[in-house]
Amino acid sequence: MASIFTKIIQGDIPCYKIAEDDNFFAFLDINPNAKGHTLCVPRKEVDKILDLDESTYLGLMKFARKVGQAIEQAIECKRVGISVIGLEVPHVHVHLIPLQSMENATFQKKVSLTKEDFEIIATSIKNKLK
Amino acid sequence: MASIFTKIIQGDIPCYKIAEDDNFFAFLDINPNAKGHTLCVPRKEVDKILDLDESTYLGLMKFARKVGQAIEQAIECKRVGISVIGLEVPHVHVHLIPLQSMENATFQKKVSLTKEDFEIIATSIKNKLK
Repeated sequence: MASIFTKIIQGDIPCYKIAEDDNFFAFLDINPNAKGHTLCVPRKEVDKILDLDESTYLGLMKFARKVGQAIEQAIECKRVGISVIGLEVPHVHVHLIPLQSMENATFQKKVSLTKEDFEIIATSIKNKLK
Repeated sequence: MASIFTKIIQGDIPCYKIAEDDNFFAFLDINPNAKGHTLCVPRKEVDKILDLDESTYLGLMKFARKVGQAIEQAIECKRVGISVIGLEVPHVHVHLIPLQSMENATFQKKVSLTKEDFEIIATSIKNKLK
């Protein structure tokens, strides 16, 4: 069965898309640690990041760097953190999280955003990617 | 002033070294989230990971992948997580953390290890790198 991220990539589940190319896809995390929390996912459905072939892995990290730099410009934060955990969804995903404090990196506290908030955030990040 | 990681790389502060090459250095985190928690650091002293030039950034991620795969083979875990936060030490460091549960990824709970434990862990990871 397709993972929830494959369904998002295929458009079967809506998302606030940030960027995509032939191999990778980025969209806002719907249950964010902080405003601007974004997920970068390979189209290829692999469970563990260290099981990706080297080329796909490095392509993903390069893609995440570009998206992360746009987030860092668009969202007020001390820096953008990077996190790969993957114990819940068996499809590689790189969390890019604007950090103000350690709390934003722990996945213990979430922020509540409206549809309009998400749309404004997505647009502001996408504008920095141009 | 040299960062604590530069002092470790230079040998001024002791560490349990895992790997090194011309550009990068890996050693056990002395205050680990889990057994096998390792830090990968560029020799170049840069604060934020997204400020590294693309080549150094990708070199670091490639180095971390190789070390992470060795950890995954050496240490009993569900997978190795990757985390870059950097709010405490202003010298890029990639955390590689053997995960059994989400708790290992939150930096809220630490494990206490003896010098002998660290030595055994470092040796077992290094053996997988050979």
